[in-house]
Amino acid sequence: MPKVIIVGGVAGGATTAAQLRRIDPDIDITIYEMGRDISYGNCGLPYHIGGEVAERDQLIAATPESFLERDIIVNTHHEVMGVDAGRNTVQVKDILNDRTFDAEYDHLILSPGSAPRIIPALFDVPQAFVLHSLEHLDEIKAHIENEGIERAVVVGGGYIGLEMAENLVHRGIKVTLVHRSEEVYPPLERDMSGFIVDELKAQGVDVKLNAEIMEVDGDTATLTTGEEIDAPMIIAGIGITPRTDFLKDSDIATNDLGYICVDQYGRTNHENIYAVGDAIETSYQHVDRPVNVALAWGAHRMAYVISNQISGDRSVQFEGLLGTNIIRFFDHDIATLGLEVSELDDYPHFVIDHKQKNKAGYMADSLPIHVRLHVAQEDGKILRAAVVGTEGVDKRIDVLAAHIRLGGTAMDLANIEVAYSPPYSSPKSVLNMVGYKAIEKMNKLQK
Amino acid sequence: MPKVIIVGGVAGGATTAAQLRRIDPDIDITIYEMGRDISYGNCGLPYHIGGEVAERDQLIAATPESFLERDIIVNTHHEVMGVDAGRNTVQVKDILNDRTFDAEYDHLILSPGSAPRIIPALFDVPQAFVLHSLEHLDEIKAHIENEGIERAVVVGGGYIGLEMAENLVHRGIKVTLVHRSEEVYPPLERDMSGFIVDELKAQGVDVKLNAEIMEVDGDTATLTTGEEIDAPMIIAGIGITPRTDFLKDSDIATNDLGYICVDQYGRTNHENIYAVGDAIETSYQHVDRPVNVALAWGAHRMAYVISNQISGDRSVQFEGLLGTNIIRFFDHDIATLGLEVSELDDYPHFVIDHKQKNKAGYMADSLPIHVRLHVAQEDGKILRAAVVGTEGVDKRIDVLAAHIRLGGTAMDLANIEVAYSPPYSSPKSVLNMVGYKAIEKMNKLQK
Repeated sequence: MPKVIIVGGVAGGATTAAQLRRIDPDIDITIYEMGRDISYGNCGLPYHIGGEVAERDQLIAATPESFLERDIIVNTHHEVMGVDAGRNTVQVKDILNDRTFDAEYDHLILSPGSAPRIIPALFDVPQAFVLHSLEHLDEIKAHIENEGIERAVVVGGGYIGLEMAENLVHRGIKVTLVHRSEEVYPPLERDMSGFIVDELKAQGVDVKLNAEIMEVDGDTATLTTGEEIDAPMIIAGIGITPRTDFLKDSDIATNDLGYICVDQYGRTNHENIYAVGDAIETSYQHVDRPVNVALAWGAHRMAYVISNQISGDRSVQFEGLLGTNIIRFFDHDIATLGLEVSELDDYPHFVIDHKQKNKAGYMADSLPIHVRLHVAQEDGKILRAAVVGTEGVDKRIDVLAAHIRLGGTAMDLANIEVAYSPPYSSPKSVLNMVGYKAIEKMNKLQK
Repeated sequence: MPKVIIVGGVAGGATTAAQLRRIDPDIDITIYEMGRDISYGNCGLPYHIGGEVAERDQLIAATPESFLERDIIVNTHHEVMGVDAGRNTVQVKDILNDRTFDAEYDHLILSPGSAPRIIPALFDVPQAFVLHSLEHLDEIKAHIENEGIERAVVVGGGYIGLEMAENLVHRGIKVTLVHRSEEVYPPLERDMSGFIVDELKAQGVDVKLNAEIMEVDGDTATLTTGEEIDAPMIIAGIGITPRTDFLKDSDIATNDLGYICVDQYGRTNHENIYAVGDAIETSYQHVDRPVNVALAWGAHRMAYVISNQISGDRSVQFEGLLGTNIIRFFDHDIATLGLEVSELDDYPHFVIDHKQKNKAGYMADSLPIHVRLHVAQEDGKILRAAVVGTEGVDKRIDVLAAHIRLGGTAMDLANIEVAYSPPYSSPKSVLNMVGYKAIEKMNKLQK
């Protein structure tokens, strides 16, 4: 019976285990998870604080007990400290019992995930938290309830920071958002993101830009601007790093940033070692360029690919990622896909900017959508897309993802026969019009 | 200067005229429209009755005056009575002045549209209306206001009937819906459409199935069931027929039902005669089979194709249609695309049925979506899709339209990298899961 060891039991690891068991009822599966919990909905954590996820336990998809019923062995509080790829063993630390042992595998699946970054000023600050796990959620909730928290500081204006700010506001907590630059939500083009700070202010959030927390003393935080702010609770959302230090003595290949390199089968540089989830480097789907996308869609897809590889169906491959992403920010939807803005310089391209109502313009509740495409001059390939609006943004970004995946160009968007009825679209939809604009632009360039 | 005559000035005709002028500032364009108005948003008419389109004039995209500013001549109340393709002339009746004349063209564009069907029992009934034009809208509104209408009968449970019922309810009018069979909204699979009658009843609509109006006497209508109902206003929405009788003495090819046959350039059997809009027969995009789709998307696309053909860019083609459609019905969204149910028998296929929440299941406001695909056994091609739910249906049908257009199969849906965040989707989206189900089904069939 081949023995599979999975390092990490959250999204990537748990999904791979479940999928593998589904395909192969007999294979021997053991998960080592350093934390307390497995298989919880990471992305849903902020929404329990805001109340949109009513019960905490709704976030839990599987437990060690439910996995055991499917003959999947889960060891929580077990940290994998190293991999000996030559001997096909991992070195495991049983944290609660403070002992270390080696475990043998035939196939190893690495799903160590990422660790939230933390700033030095918040080391050892008891009211400073991150929200990266169910344990963190429990800590934050307990702190809010025990301390009667009515004010909080959110550090970071990225997606975690914005989701935290929104959910704290929904909970009735007065928020101060501290962001180190002027540019909140870096995934979005700077000239498209101005509404975010406006909305934060409209929601009563005190926004401190170009500021960092320098020091915390009691319930007071001092910013690099000199200002002192009330900080009875601080939640930092300033990014993540892959949790791959345990691989440093192995010869499993990682990139400069520590992400584990995998091929289209999810395989590392070792035939029988796979990796999935936040800690992997894969490649873009639409251009030949490496990328790391710490998002759930890719983890779920890769879990499927790896479980098929291991169980013998080698035909299933990972196509790479567009990095399609979206966040809801109060009434706004913000979505992007494709290359990051900073990567665009390497590709001669033009920009299509288009604003149109999300439904027939004569409908009383029609609302504007703004689409920006970065289009390769050479062939019309859509290199990057950004879509913002307050309704129907998710539709447009998903259509773009489906279209790009099958080789559709910007010009080709004119041909997508969307479902038209006044409550949903115009007869020439937002994306159709983007396509017509791309045709005009391309025609001009070719003259 | 080539002379273009356009028969019909509503969606297809007006859009073609505008597009042609945009491409070619010099070409000579004349529109003959038998009705009073041109270029109004047909699909928006019911929503003005319900109040979602606040001002009637918002429905008007262009007028004869605004077209004249762009050097497009519009003759309303002018009915084209015949076409002499040999002599390149049309016979025109100036209705208000009761005179007839011939007009010459170099290119002729037929956009006569469709006429609403009417049942004999409603002939000469003063309070019986259809809603197919702005004139009809004005008549209905005047009748509601002048007669203080508080009750109305809607005849027909197709999309016009359902939209009318909803909008009358929104206006506070008590509705009786009379439908001749048990099966309302025929575009949708019968076993998926049960909620429609439930919702009608929940909205206070009195639903009379298996019934037709047999006779109207004063404000009372007698049904074929013998029942008498209050009918101070009757709106019939029982389908349309192509308005192509004027072609019967020409040799312009039409199909058995009177739809004008066109090729991928929008051309009829005459090199210089094109047709667009409700009255054409085109072909499906995804299977080789003729179809007529009286919807706005195709009219707008064909307007673009024809105007490019005439102005010399022969590379632009019409790809055929999926018939992607959607209606909003109170809180429900109902969408389909592809073959009609009755056409499926000709294609060996299997069915994928899938129900899943529209967003992460732990979100308090997540709502179920039901997707049904009819998939060709041979190659996994999606022959037909139906999607119903109360949120996010339009997204799924549009993604399907984009996917099918570029040759994506049912199995392939697993690979679409949708934008995931708990308020929008699950990590494995509704369509991804449909894809995984199709893979399993296909694997079983091939064993």
